[in-house]
Amino acid sequence: MRTILLGRPLQDSELGHEKYSVLWGIPVFASDAISSVSYAGEEILLVLIPALGMLSFRVFLPVVAAIITLLALLVFCYRQTIEAYPSGGGAYIVAGENLGHLPGLVAGSALVLGYILTVAVSACAGAAAITSAFPGALPYKALIAFGIICLLTWGNLRGMRESSVMFGVPTYLFIITMIALIVTGLVKYSMGLYTPEQTVIVTENARDTLLFVVLKAFASGCTALTGVEAVSNGVPNFRDPAQKNAKKVLYAMAGFVCLVFLGVSILINLYKIVPNEQATAVSQLAGAVFGQGSAMYFVVQLMTVVILALAANTAFADMPLLMALMARDGYLPRQLVSRGTRLNYSNGILLLFASASILVFAFRGSQHLLLPLYASGVFISFLLSQLGMLVHWKRVRGAGWQLKAGINGFGTLVTGVTLVIIVLMKFLSGAWVTLVCIVLLVYMMLRIKKHYDSVADELRVTDLAAAKEQVSRAKPAKVILPVQSMSRSFVKTLDCALSCGFSEIELYHVCDDEEKALALKRRIEELGVDARFVYEVTTYRNVNEVLLRHVQTEAAKLPEYQNLTVMMGALVVTHPLQRLLHNQTTQRLARKMERYPNVAVFNVPYLIG
Amino acid sequence: MRTILLGRPLQDSELGHEKYSVLWGIPVFASDAISSVSYAGEEILLVLIPALGMLSFRVFLPVVAAIITLLALLVFCYRQTIEAYPSGGGAYIVAGENLGHLPGLVAGSALVLGYILTVAVSACAGAAAITSAFPGALPYKALIAFGIICLLTWGNLRGMRESSVMFGVPTYLFIITMIALIVTGLVKYSMGLYTPEQTVIVTENARDTLLFVVLKAFASGCTALTGVEAVSNGVPNFRDPAQKNAKKVLYAMAGFVCLVFLGVSILINLYKIVPNEQATAVSQLAGAVFGQGSAMYFVVQLMTVVILALAANTAFADMPLLMALMARDGYLPRQLVSRGTRLNYSNGILLLFASASILVFAFRGSQHLLLPLYASGVFISFLLSQLGMLVHWKRVRGAGWQLKAGINGFGTLVTGVTLVIIVLMKFLSGAWVTLVCIVLLVYMMLRIKKHYDSVADELRVTDLAAAKEQVSRAKPAKVILPVQSMSRSFVKTLDCALSCGFSEIELYHVCDDEEKALALKRRIEELGVDARFVYEVTTYRNVNEVLLRHVQTEAAKLPEYQNLTVMMGALVVTHPLQRLLHNQTTQRLARKMERYPNVAVFNVPYLIG
Repeated sequence: MRTILLGRPLQDSELGHEKYSVLWGIPVFASDAISSVSYAGEEILLVLIPALGMLSFRVFLPVVAAIITLLALLVFCYRQTIEAYPSGGGAYIVAGENLGHLPGLVAGSALVLGYILTVAVSACAGAAAITSAFPGALPYKALIAFGIICLLTWGNLRGMRESSVMFGVPTYLFIITMIALIVTGLVKYSMGLYTPEQTVIVTENARDTLLFVVLKAFASGCTALTGVEAVSNGVPNFRDPAQKNAKKVLYAMAGFVCLVFLGVSILINLYKIVPNEQATAVSQLAGAVFGQGSAMYFVVQLMTVVILALAANTAFADMPLLMALMARDGYLPRQLVSRGTRLNYSNGILLLFASASILVFAFRGSQHLLLPLYASGVFISFLLSQLGMLVHWKRVRGAGWQLKAGINGFGTLVTGVTLVIIVLMKFLSGAWVTLVCIVLLVYMMLRIKKHYDSVADELRVTDLAAAKEQVSRAKPAKVILPVQSMSRSFVKTLDCALSCGFSEIELYHVCDDEEKALALKRRIEELGVDARFVYEVTTYRNVNEVLLRHVQTEAAKLPEYQNLTVMMGALVVTHPLQRLLHNQTTQRLARKMERYPNVAVFNVPYLIG
Repeated sequence: MRTILLGRPLQDSELGHEKYSVLWGIPVFASDAISSVSYAGEEILLVLIPALGMLSFRVFLPVVAAIITLLALLVFCYRQTIEAYPSGGGAYIVAGENLGHLPGLVAGSALVLGYILTVAVSACAGAAAITSAFPGALPYKALIAFGIICLLTWGNLRGMRESSVMFGVPTYLFIITMIALIVTGLVKYSMGLYTPEQTVIVTENARDTLLFVVLKAFASGCTALTGVEAVSNGVPNFRDPAQKNAKKVLYAMAGFVCLVFLGVSILINLYKIVPNEQATAVSQLAGAVFGQGSAMYFVVQLMTVVILALAANTAFADMPLLMALMARDGYLPRQLVSRGTRLNYSNGILLLFASASILVFAFRGSQHLLLPLYASGVFISFLLSQLGMLVHWKRVRGAGWQLKAGINGFGTLVTGVTLVIIVLMKFLSGAWVTLVCIVLLVYMMLRIKKHYDSVADELRVTDLAAAKEQVSRAKPAKVILPVQSMSRSFVKTLDCALSCGFSEIELYHVCDDEEKALALKRRIEELGVDARFVYEVTTYRNVNEVLLRHVQTEAAKLPEYQNLTVMMGALVVTHPLQRLLHNQTTQRLARKMERYPNVAVFNVPYLIG
């Protein structure tokens, strides 16, 4: 079943490590950043238009320009991370190494949230591209987004090879499609073939100042910058010279984001596109340029869905890796460390699937509602990464460190200010959720670490001599064998007890009727084994409690270093439906007895069928 | 927690056996039957009015009369069951003893379905009484019904004493309220103080013949008869002379049902009440007689809810008892046999809760949709009970058996014909569901019985000599002790293994690196114990699978009668949240190993914290 669904198990050596060239590295690392273009412009307009009406189109392009400037700055900053961390410098590592544990955990939490939101936002934006093309599907938007997540989860559980071609072709196709859109749009406009409809817009009672509106629009537009840090995480995955190639990819990525974002924004401005609940801005633009329902229109929508799915897939590749890293450091459950039979981090993938799905349904499939959470989480990790780099240069020094520190210092300042803007502007519409989640995550991680540390302490053999004495002191002890009736399972258990060298076998019986106990005693005596029959009569319906109390009492009588063994015959029914017909009492009792300090439980299974 | 919610555990001797007098026995056994009055008349009208319009009120009373005649006949029939089964003669027992296993199971399944539907229908009808009084609550009808079921479940899990006073007072209050309603209504009408509104009724295109409509109405009205068998189940609960008192209660119950049903029906007829989705017939009647919104109107509604809740409570008392009986016979899961700490059949109560709740939500809280299922199930058990009694008299004979057989024979004929009418008239609107469910239940019960029988066969010690030989042949065997690292848990496990007299201790280690295995070997050798260290290197991520395969291979080497013991150290983390941080690998491995024919698993717990 698992093999059909997920494919055959793989050997460790089959873990591929494809090294990327610049040409094919661009799509692998850039799909996340480039895909942001499909919703960033729209988010800006959704802030501007209700406040300013058609005036919005005067403010729109300056906001876009500010964001592109910020992008350029980030490129310079991350260029330095690539230089300093040839083995990959995600925010978790950079902040952890330079700022200490706690900032590292904050960055890690922000990244984890960011990945979850990448998936949720991309799936919802992909669903929006679909519902824009097929308005009848609008009521099922959340379901469509969930479907996209399911597909990606399945693919990643199978362990899709992150082949560069699989990523590359659609990404370049998306870029080509967008360039075609931009060029056709500009030509059409300049030839006067398109006049914007006169849309009547009812603006809200504009009590906010222009500055406030512009800042809010800027905060919304910052979602265009999500994903720019990807290259700096993945330096070791590039062909030699890795750092040089990584930098080229970083520049190219920034170039493409800039080109597409700027081009699409200019077109939106020229065509006076007003986004609404039914159709995304890009969809309306494609409709206006190529004609609603034309083949090219559907190509634009299709490529948008594909690039968004690729962006979400990046998170599926990276988050389980990050979580494995954090779990190895002891901050997350250990189950996230181990790779599954298909060599992927299946637990992390399933966790991402579950949390992104919950978000999609909780926010009813709306990327507009999810994006404020996204932007604030991403900029927290940007800020900590920049601050970490600043401290890094001050720590390691080296030639011209002042300049480098200066660049990252400026980066810290700018990302810090942007973060403040985003949090202030988007606090009530979602940023508070991110902040609360990060605090909770960090608290949880610290607790997990504490737990693992104390377990490791408890398990460590510190005193070999004591351990040696313990095992040398071992001597045959007593076994308690609870018995309910003379059955084959009991005979097998008794047989098993006899074949260990216990010093004494106690057959223990609880019942509500003395007569029956004596009858059972006589039957067992016929077997002629050397065992003591002990019984207890109870008038409460608590046979199991009496047994547990007896075990506890007997265990307490033994010296602390000696174990009391309880041996129980357990019916084992393999058919899952038939298992419902049995009480599983033995299993439940065993679980309880395991909690007594010096009791060991010996299950002798009796297989049915 | 459990104690706060459900109360302290009770001793067996605290199981009370209140014996009922006639006066207080009536409400205990009659609430179910009497409560039917609150919906039966309405169901008849809901069939008649769309077909016949205002003509319905000419046909209504004759249909009611037919049902009351049927009631009288059933009283005579069940009077005989009381005589023949002083220890209680439910349909499961009567049909099982006289007709054989299979008819007994059919009757038992019909009864189980009947109890579930009693709860679902009564809860929905109770919710209807509430939404009639407070129309704003109409959208939440299913939720209100669910709330009623939850309250009853909680009460029954606590183990409410079925005190006669608790039942008696509300039942008598209900009867008094209804008599007040009837008398006031008749007086008001005869004094000409009420003229029915001229309701314009659009009848459907009447393609059905009058006979068909009348039969359908009759089938709907038969829901008035649900619950009349209750007395015959509970004969031993009456004060001596038990049978005589039981008969008196039977008559009195029939009298009250007849009185209230006839009275309310006559009023409905005089007042020309047309039931609708918003308000039940009884609610409209109470409104017309006492004035909508008057105190007495609310009393009627409140008492209706209370009597319906009591009726549902009857099912909560009786179904777990019936299921315990059937489980004791091996037809239902064994978990239903044992009483919980509060001496009630908690598993049966929870099962009833779950199934009734599912029905309520599946049928969106509509008693109209549920009643066709209910009537057909109840009449199947009536028929089998009558047929069983007929065979009973033929079997035991005795003085005047021909007359007794004749009465039950006539009862068989009449309930049989009624059942046919109900099934034919209500087939598509629900009777088919009942039939399918009964077939499935009977099939399931037969399979369960077969399973338990085969398990009992497998466990029975048939050959004492062989068992004796088996235990005498027992001799120390080998133990496998999987080891991952040198930890305190491992030392404890080793200690435990040494204190049994195994012939050989094998330390088994799986790893992906030979170096590490040899290092571990050296560390363990420092302990200086007599144990063989075996290791295996795997390049797949399947440490557990290699271990399982090794255990299987080693077990296969042993003679069939000898057990291979696997001893594993298991971390035991008691805090439920902390348990999430551990893999539970040992537990999972143990569960798998238990399925190998001759492997016994010895868990040595290492308690953390």
